[in-house]
This record gives sequence, structure tokens and C-alpha cells, in this order.
Amino acid sequence: MMTAPTRENIDALKAIVGEKGLLEPNGSDLAVYETCVRYGAGKAAFVVRPASSTETSKVLAYCVGQDISLVPQSGNSGLVGASTPDTSGHQGVLSFDRLTGTAENDKIIFDEENRSVTVGAGVRLSDLNAFLAPKGYVFPIDLGADPRIGGMIATNTGGARFLRYGDVRQNTLGVKVVLADEAGTELDFMSGLRKDNTGIDWKHLFIGTTGVLGVVTEAILNVERLPQQSAAALLVPRDEAAVLKLLLEMEQRCDTNLTAFEGMSSDAMAAAFDHVPSLRNPFPGGELPGYVLLVELSRTWAKRESEQSLDELLETVLAEIWEDEEAPLENAFIGRPEEMWSLRHTLSEGVKHAGKLVAFDVSFRRGDLMRFRAFMAQELPKKFPDVRICDFGHVGDGGLHFNLAIAKDDTRLDDESFIPELRAWVVECVVDKYHGSFSAEHAIGRSNQGFYDLYTPEKVKELAAGLKALTSAGELGAVKLG
Amino acid sequence: MMTAPTRENIDALKAIVGEKGLLEPNGSDLAVYETCVRYGAGKAAFVVRPASSTETSKVLAYCVGQDISLVPQSGNSGLVGASTPDTSGHQGVLSFDRLTGTAENDKIIFDEENRSVTVGAGVRLSDLNAFLAPKGYVFPIDLGADPRIGGMIATNTGGARFLRYGDVRQNTLGVKVVLADEAGTELDFMSGLRKDNTGIDWKHLFIGTTGVLGVVTEAILNVERLPQQSAAALLVPRDEAAVLKLLLEMEQRCDTNLTAFEGMSSDAMAAAFDHVPSLRNPFPGGELPGYVLLVELSRTWAKRESEQSLDELLETVLAEIWEDEEAPLENAFIGRPEEMWSLRHTLSEGVKHAGKLVAFDVSFRRGDLMRFRAFMAQELPKKFPDVRICDFGHVGDGGLHFNLAIAKDDTRLDDESFIPELRAWVVECVVDKYHGSFSAEHAIGRSNQGFYDLYTPEKVKELAAGLKALTSAGELGAVKLG
Repeated sequence: MMTAPTRENIDALKAIVGEKGLLEPNGSDLAVYETCVRYGAGKAAFVVRPASSTETSKVLAYCVGQDISLVPQSGNSGLVGASTPDTSGHQGVLSFDRLTGTAENDKIIFDEENRSVTVGAGVRLSDLNAFLAPKGYVFPIDLGADPRIGGMIATNTGGARFLRYGDVRQNTLGVKVVLADEAGTELDFMSGLRKDNTGIDWKHLFIGTTGVLGVVTEAILNVERLPQQSAAALLVPRDEAAVLKLLLEMEQRCDTNLTAFEGMSSDAMAAAFDHVPSLRNPFPGGELPGYVLLVELSRTWAKRESEQSLDELLETVLAEIWEDEEAPLENAFIGRPEEMWSLRHTLSEGVKHAGKLVAFDVSFRRGDLMRFRAFMAQELPKKFPDVRICDFGHVGDGGLHFNLAIAKDDTRLDDESFIPELRAWVVECVVDKYHGSFSAEHAIGRSNQGFYDLYTPEKVKELAAGLKALTSAGELGAVKLG
Repeated sequence: MMTAPTRENIDALKAIVGEKGLLEPNGSDLAVYETCVRYGAGKAAFVVRPASSTETSKVLAYCVGQDISLVPQSGNSGLVGASTPDTSGHQGVLSFDRLTGTAENDKIIFDEENRSVTVGAGVRLSDLNAFLAPKGYVFPIDLGADPRIGGMIATNTGGARFLRYGDVRQNTLGVKVVLADEAGTELDFMSGLRKDNTGIDWKHLFIGTTGVLGVVTEAILNVERLPQQSAAALLVPRDEAAVLKLLLEMEQRCDTNLTAFEGMSSDAMAAAFDHVPSLRNPFPGGELPGYVLLVELSRTWAKRESEQSLDELLETVLAEIWEDEEAPLENAFIGRPEEMWSLRHTLSEGVKHAGKLVAFDVSFRRGDLMRFRAFMAQELPKKFPDVRICDFGHVGDGGLHFNLAIAKDDTRLDDESFIPELRAWVVECVVDKYHGSFSAEHAIGRSNQGFYDLYTPEKVKELAAGLKALTSAGELGAVKLG
């Protein structure tokens, strides 16, 4: 439907964004924009890099008028192929690289009284936090990757401290959006208010929808005080059923001092230790328990003389839990938070080296997460033998990075239908049997478009198509929600 | 456009919902459904009270087919006329009175592991909390009124502990919605998941839009542990500029133990003491400071021997703040939380008796709240002399109940244009001068439709009209967003 951009189109775009703003097709510098971290590469007709919301508006208006399909791309650190072009060579990439300013032309505007910042969509999470740290604040979405803000909004990332701080949606106070319509309409929902109920709260349509309905160019974000104390422990639950009991106990006994409750399987930890041999193994004799929880407490104030330290609080809490004869706890190791997090954060990289990786980003009602794991431990070997489960996840919010590793010399990998069948079966169990989500925090991209199509009710797709038609006249985004 | 319901229509609706489910027009039992708490009465063609989502679907499908306009009504405790019919006598009221069950037919379903409940839209907040309290949990939206859940979702109420728990939106994990289309389509977004990014998060369209886009019949809500300790103080800031400094200090020094930071003007307190003479005046000699902050700390665990009590923590924190030579604090009174909250909660009732009340529910970026108050203290007397400002509000989230009291014998009240002019001027200052919201937590109803029309950009209204056309074929709700 969409046409291949012509020389004339590219020159016209260059006239809007300037020389620096446009990367020509077939240039070697395009590869990085064409390649998804996890799912291969497409081919870009060009990369257009507007430097402001106004330029973005002109680019979208022009492309809509010329029938050119655009894929918005932020940090391109996403894992589901939501920000890369298809293989046709007809799609242009709309990069956020240069969207690092705001309408007021400052890079980041800090409003301490409101505990908020105004940022361009192209600002990197690490740059935002480097700006905030000296002021004593943080944008509290804790991730392994270093995305740009626009992409974090477009995928509604959650991360490892969701339990305390929520997701990007919860921390987004406002957005500026450009629509893919004839005018490249700019919509300003940048009030930055915390309480505002004057009709439809439009920003929610542009959060988590990977740029399909419009391009977020600026945002106002909630920020939080940087913690000044923390403590962490690795807990070994008595059995799988004990995990949720532990979570509820910790929540009651620590309240919002509890800032993480993460689960790690022995196979995921083993993969991390294999991959980074210098990583310290904190377990006696190096023997990995079947399942381990990383719990973290933190506070925004420095320890006062009159108070217990958080280490002491953690000891007290664990002792209280242990008092119960049917304590859900088998063992506990209090240690340095950095060390425990470095184990946790090495898991993603580790599992990539455990074999051919088949990764799922799924979620459940919190109680169902462990039940799903137990089901899989039993049923997967029957259905797909010799597949290792190396999962880890966010038990506190029901999110699970369910990773499967297959030996690289496994001959089943020669069969093109093997992995698709495995993926389809796992997702079917997640969605149909455990009423979970097939995309917890990575949103919808090319790699899970098929699951969206399969599991989204027809009426909902019809509404999505209607909404797309309402907001857009042109093609925007890597996926179709309608 | 809409037609007056006929005898035949009423009988047909009765056939759907049964005798108990339909209240005939002109019955004396209709008055309560026709009258808004604050803004007078309309006239209902009938009141239809479906007892389930399925019945609601049939009612909507029938009314759409017959061109009958419906106004959804939950607890009818809202303050902006969003749930009562107009005076034509053509609109029916769709009451949530009997929507107290769930599809599974239990009144309230508790999932402790997920920290969530499934409830019908007709369940009252007090009933939900009476159900949860013995289990140690609470739905943490703290309000003076006792609405039903559906209305809380439809207005996205915030309340006095927003600072810690957020608004209804933040605590809504899922909704079931019935659309006003030919089929009375039921949409099930009841996953109850905390992390789920599989396309558009539709529930947000039905939160805060007072039933205009569809009727929420059931919901899954996040619940929190009931606090087991609390402490409170009344703080007298050194001056108005000190208020935000105090907020930031308290946030850093107490973290999320800080569960409320409320502001009370002397005139609002005076009105409360006048109205309820038994209310204890905690200030020396009974002399009211110009502005007072109610701060509350709370925790979900019972005090441990090894720990300071929250009263002690509060004392420590206030002493730390006081150490600074330029301390933003002039005076502080630590006292019983119940006593302080009873003062705070008497303000709404008190100001109603302070004269003819002209009430605004507005919000600002947090820092602008006090600047707006200062501006009003200076400019209001010039523009509208002899109008008393009896405001109170949620300083921690920027929400302000800006109340004006006019002596009941003021002859200006005989002039019909006086109050509209006063309201228009105040809202203009809120929106244009201080970039605030004219509806912080009461949403849009008949009483502020005019402000919606005036301050909503044309393009946004156009999108709203499109969205309305996409979801509905019939007339639903008391207001128009398009």
C-alpha cells in the first residue's frame, strides 16, 4: 500500500530536518537503526532525525501526504521488534536521537517543588539520572538496558522496582504527541498535574502503544528522592508455595521500605556464574538453591542515631518470620545490595549464553506466577524434552522473564517449525490456562504481533482500528493493532 | 434529538430488569436519583436498576435501539452534576444500586496473593472496606463521602492520601464495561494483572469520564495493608513560601511513611469550629493560625520494641527541620491522628454553613498552589470584595478545594450573573494564569461542562467526538466531551 520513498522525498525530508537530520539509504551507519536487539534486521528507506517536536510534526505531515510509512525508534533497546523497519526497504525510521531538548530549549527542566522533570523523548535514562542524582532525585524505573525516554513511554517499561514505584505510566505526568495526520497535529498534554480530571486522559493512549497512534516527543515525568539507605538479602523459600507467603509477610512487615522482591531460578543463576566467573557465589559450598528471592529495603533518608539500620530491620523482620513453626523460609543471606544486584543483573546476559535462547516476557496475577512455573517444570519436559528453564522475574508484580535454553547442537533447531511451536504452546499456557499476559513490559512488536492477533478479541481490534483511523491518516509504527 | 420514553419502553425495560429493577416516573422515590448533592435537581423519565453486567448490556442495547438517553448513576455523591438527569424528563437514570455482585456471583472476591478484589460497580466504599478490614486490608482512597465503586472509577477520585496511594486510576487493575451500542457490547478487561502491555490499555478511557464512553459494571482493584501505626501533627509554616519547603523536607525525611500533607486555611477551620462547637480547638488560646498543615505518618506493621514509635519519629523529624536557622516551621502540635482528621473532615461540612458557598475543585503543579492562594488573597478583594476564602486542600498533590463564602444577605446574590462571573474569573485565573486544572478530582458534570467547552482545544474535542462515535451509538452520560 505504502510506496517506496523517492530521491525527491528524501531531499524534501532533508530540507525539513537539515543535513545532520537525515541518514541516506544504504549507508553503513543505518545498520544500527535497522537491527532489533533480539530479532534480526529490516531495511530502512532512510532514517529521519528531527530535532524538535515542530520538526517531527513537519516530518509526519510530509510523510502522510506522500504515503510514506514511518517506524518511530527511540533507544532501539526493545526486545520485541517494535522499533525497526520491515524488510521491504519502503519504511523510513523516525529516530529520537536528536529529540533531546524541550520546547523551552533546555535539555531537562527540573521542577523540584512538583517533583517532576520535563524532558525530550530522546533523552537517555542514564542521562536523566545523571542529571538528577546530584540533586538527590531519580527517575525510579530500574532497568538493565539504557533506553531513551520516548521508548520507555511507548513500551510502558516496568522493571525491578515496580513494587515500590510502579511503571512508566504511573510516573508520566504529561506528554506532547505528534499525530500522523495531514497536519502533523501536535497535541499538548503537558500540564504536569498530579490530579486532573477534565475529560478523557489522552496520554494513556500513547503509553505502551509503541508509537502506533502518535509519536511522543516530550514528557513530564514524576521523579523520586534517591534512596540513602538500602539493605538486601537472598531468601531461600521453603518450597514454591512459600514464595507468595513470604511476599505477603515482607509487604506487611516492611511496608513500602520493600523496594524489590525478585525471583531467580537455579538454572538462570548457573548461567550467570558460567558467563561471568568473577561473580561471587554467595551460597555455602557454591551450591545453588532451586529458587532464590532477592529482597531489597530502602529509604530516602540517611540512618539516624536513634534508629535501626535497614540491615538490622531486615534481620528483625526475617527473625519474626522465622519464629513461625511453618515459616515459609528455609535460609536467608543478608549481604551487600550491590553484590546481590550484580548477580540479578547478570542473569539476562548469562541466559543468552546458556544455549539457543527462547525468551518470554509474561505476567500473571501474583499467585499464579509460581503455579505457572510448577506447571511448566512438570509439563514442558513431556512436551518438549531437553529444554532448560532459566527463568527469573519480578515476583512482587507478577512479571516473569520465562527463558528457555536449548543446546546449540540440538538438531531440532534445524526444523523451522520447532521454535514457533514451542513459543505458541508456552503462550497458550500463559494466556489460556493461567490468564496471564504474553507481554508484560516489552509491549507489542513484530515478534509478538501474531500473539496479539490471536489473543485480542475481534471487538477490541475493531475499536483499535477505529482509534487508529481517528488519530492517523498515514502508516506509523511497526505493528498493527486493528 | 432523544425521544421521551413511552409506557411501552418502560414496560420493556421492566421485562429486562424485573419489578424491583425499575422505578416508575413521578414516584416519590425518584427524588434521590434526580438530585445532585450540590447543584439542584433534574427530572428522570425512569430509574432502571440492572442487577448484573448482562442485564446492563440488555438495558443499553434496548435504549440505544429506542433512542432513549441514559445517565449512569453510582452513589450520586458527586459534586458536579455528572450523575443526574436534565430537566427535560426524557432521560432515564441507569442506577448502580443493584450492581453489587460479580460475574461469579459473590459480592466481593478477595485475592490476597494478588492483593486485589473483584467487585461490582454498585458496592459502596464503606462496604468494601468493612469487608477488607478484618482481613487487614483497605482500598486506600480516603474520602469524606461514601460513594459506590463505579462512580469512584467514573470520576477517578483522589482524596486525602493520594500522596502515598495515588488515585483510583492507579488502583484499578481491571474493568468490565458495557458500551452504548446496538449490541450493548460487554468488554472484559478484567485480567487483574499489574504488568500487562499488549496494546492499548482500554480501561483508561472509562476512568474519569463519568460514564460517557461506557458503563463500568465490575472492577478489579488493588488493595493495601491497613496501617497499624500512625502519628499526626498540625504544622504552622513560617510563611506561605515555607509550605513547599516543608513538604519537600517531610518527603525526604519520612519517605512513604508520609501518608498525608493537607492544608487548612484559618477561615475554613473557623467555619468548622462554628459548625461543630464540640470539635476541640488544638491551638493555644484557640487562636487560629493563618494556614495549617496536617501531616500524617503511618506504617503497616505494629511498633516493634527495637523501634521508635511514629510519634517519636515525627518529633525527631520536626526537630531536624527546626535545627535550620531558616526553618520553614513556626510551630508544631503533635496529637492524636483521629482528632486532627476529625478537624480536617469537618471542613467540608463547615464551609457549607459559612455563607453562600461557591466551591472550586482545582489543582496545580504543587508549587503553584500556594502562589495561586497568595494571588487570590490579594486580587479577589479588589475584584469581588467581601468574599471570604475558606479553602483547604491536598498540598502534597497540588489539589485545592478553593471555597468562597458570601454572606447570605449579600444583595449581589440577587443578581443572577454574579456567581457565574465570579466562577468564570476564578477558573480563568486557575487555568490561564496558573496552568492548573478546573477539575482536580470531581471530573466533568453539568456544573463544569461550560469550562470544559471553553478550555478544551478544538482538536481534542474533535478526537473526543470521534471516540464517542466509535464506542457508542446512543446517548449516555450527563455531559458532552465532543
